[in-house]
Formats: sequence, structure tokens, C-alpha cells
Amino acid sequence: MPDLPKAVVLFSGGLDSTTILAIAKAEKFDVHALTISYGQRHSVEVDVARRIAAAAGVARHIVLDIDLTQFGGSALTADIAVPKGRSEGDMAAGIPVTYVPARNTVFLSLALAWAEALGAFDIFIGVNALDYSGYPDCRPEFIAAFESTARLATKAGVEGAGSIRIHAPLIDFTKQAIIERGLVLGVDYGATVSCYDPGLSGAPCGNCDACQLRAKGFRDAGLDDPALA
Amino acid sequence: MPDLPKAVVLFSGGLDSTTILAIAKAEKFDVHALTISYGQRHSVEVDVARRIAAAAGVARHIVLDIDLTQFGGSALTADIAVPKGRSEGDMAAGIPVTYVPARNTVFLSLALAWAEALGAFDIFIGVNALDYSGYPDCRPEFIAAFESTARLATKAGVEGAGSIRIHAPLIDFTKQAIIERGLVLGVDYGATVSCYDPGLSGAPCGNCDACQLRAKGFRDAGLDDPALA
Repeated sequence: MPDLPKAVVLFSGGLDSTTILAIAKAEKFDVHALTISYGQRHSVEVDVARRIAAAAGVARHIVLDIDLTQFGGSALTADIAVPKGRSEGDMAAGIPVTYVPARNTVFLSLALAWAEALGAFDIFIGVNALDYSGYPDCRPEFIAAFESTARLATKAGVEGAGSIRIHAPLIDFTKQAIIERGLVLGVDYGATVSCYDPGLSGAPCGNCDACQLRAKGFRDAGLDDPALA
Repeated sequence: MPDLPKAVVLFSGGLDSTTILAIAKAEKFDVHALTISYGQRHSVEVDVARRIAAAAGVARHIVLDIDLTQFGGSALTADIAVPKGRSEGDMAAGIPVTYVPARNTVFLSLALAWAEALGAFDIFIGVNALDYSGYPDCRPEFIAAFESTARLATKAGVEGAGSIRIHAPLIDFTKQAIIERGLVLGVDYGATVSCYDPGLSGAPCGNCDACQLRAKGFRDAGLDDPALA
């Protein structure tokens, strides 16, 4: 069997990134999963990510520590309350305080560093432009711009050895569509964690934006969330 | 006195970045210095950076740890020998093994994250396209592409609050010109360290590309390197 092409998958252990891990495997990539432990309030997701990556049988899983709390500026990395019980209208209006400054730029650049060291040209990221239309770094034009920059940033771009491709297969999916796609690929959503503000036990709060969007996704799909079973 | 605009300066404690720190101060920015401790072989530079930043009186200096040795792929982050005693012709031919995959993309993205958290729009980086014409992420077209991406990546880009500017004032300077510019601004090069492979004492090896390029810069300026005095 010929070697599969390598891909770096940005992987948090949440619903979206667990789905793209399954998509990358279904597209016959040799998956290298990268989890960034950035001091986020919901650090329980790092343990979840380790379990899911091991179960999925990835080629390698790196958990990279980087303390973005030194910069602050977000409810996920500073002492700012995570909003609870917001309406869909509130969520759609502007950029929430859970936005982490330049997070996807940082994540993609780290994925690019690993991809280049591996000789890989494919990077997967689970961004989604529908849930938070206000997140600047979830927009298709941002992903396209990063891809262009990445092609200039790397050795392969100079030597003509290949072109970096940023895959964002969920970018225009609803949460319902993401769940339906993942189920077809055999994803066990019972293992995933989406909550921005879980308790010490890792139990989801049920009221933050992430919990509400997840609940709506399962509801729209006519399913119960297996993580709440 | 009105508040000065804030800028994030990527600062290693080397000759180039110490010069841009002085340039940013001369241009009346409130300087926030960012040093990335990425597991580089020449980690002595982090201690040097702390001393120089303190002496320069920056508003804040963050040393951020990020272990790029997990990715490897470079003589600075893996067990690969640093080349010594190369001719100028060899240095000009291709990308050396001291190139760290996507390093400037990672560094700029972290500077962007801090800038956004600070509400700053100006980022300084000491890249130089002449010394290593082969480094993909020191080229002007890479810097321009990253700037475009950064404008899309951030809240300010969505809200129209301002545009990120990447300043690379040394990009087309010779090492001699950098030294001459710094001396006019009062930079003490005796405190800076450029070596890729210093001894445990921090003493420069004198033979790696960085040592040789630095020596040539002082020689061309008709000066002795004060760090060797």
C-alpha cells in the first residue's frame, strides 16, 4: 500500500474538530493531530482530545502548550465571565467576549510549522462561518488569505515542491449538517466536549453559546446529544 | 503628554531585533517587547533579551514559551549540527538547515494576538532579506501577505477600527547598514547575542552563519564588534 499523504488536523476534542478528524481520515490522509493547550478556561478538552485521538488511531498527536493568558483579551483566557443564556439574536450580533484574539491565525501558523517539518501540504481546521458570523478568523476570506500567506511562508513555496492547502470543510455547514456528516463517518459525539465553561468534573454548563449551539444542532437533527445521556 | 500608540516588537536580543526595538522607540511607539522562547539551541538569547528590554525601558516584556522542538525540522530545534565556516557563496545558495519551519509566521501570529489584545495596530519584526535571500519568510512578499491576512484575521478588520501594519524596517538593509542605523540610535551592541550555537557561557562560536554575518557587518562598518571586546 502506498504511503498516504500526511495532513495536520487542528483538533480540540470538540464536536467540529472531531468531525474534521473523521473527514481527513475518510479522505485517506495520514492524520497528524495537533491540539493547542493555550490556557483556555475549558482545559478539560485537552484530556478529551487525547482520548479521542488515541481511539481514532492517528499517526501522531501533539499537545502543544502555549500560554495565551499572558496576552488575555478573551473570556477564555482572562478573568472575564463567559456569557450564559444568550438568545440566538444576541449570538448573531457582533463578536462575543469568548473570541480569542487572533487565535485561528496562531493555530494555523503552528499547524503550518508542523506540516512543513513533516513535509505535509494539507492542514485541516474546523472553522464554521455560520454559527458566529462575527468571528473574523472563521470567514472564508480569512482562510483563503492565510493559505496564500502560507504558500509564501514556506520552503516548498520557494523551491516549487508543492503548495499548502488549508481545508475548512465545515465552513458553510450548520451545526446540524456537521453532526449528520460526522454520524455518517461513525463519529462518537458522546466522547466530545464543546462547553466553554465546564465544571471541574468536565460536565457541560448547558448555557454558554457553545452548549446552546450544540444543543440546537442535535435538536435540529432530531437527535439526543449522546454526551448528555 | 498624549499616550503614545502601542506597538508589539518581536525581540530576540540579537543584533537585528535590538535595532528595531530602538527604531520603534525612536518612532514614538509605546513598545511592548515579545520574546519567543521556542526551544532554540541558542536559549542564552532569552536571558540577554530580558536584560536589554529592561535597560531599554519597554512598557512590558513578555517571554512566551512554545516548544517547537516537538515539531523539529531545523538545526535550531532538533539534533542537527549547526553548519560552521561556510563561505558567502554557500550561505547565499538555498535555504540553510538553521531555517525553522514557518517560524516567522508563528512569531507574527503571536505578535498579532498580543497586539489585538492590547488594541495595538503596529508590529515590528527584524527580518532581513539580504543576508539569506533563501529564507522564504524573510521576503517582502511574505511580509505583505501576512499583513493582508492579519487585517482579515482580527476584530478591528471586521469593525473597521483600524488596520494592522507590519513594520520590517531592516528588510533591505545590509548588516553594515543595520549596525550604522543602530549606533545612531544609541544601541549598545555589546549586550546583543547573534550566535546560533553559543557555548554554555553564552560565548559566540565565531563560525556559524550568524556569527560570520555579524562579523562581516562590523568589518564593513570599519568597527570592532563590542560583544567581542
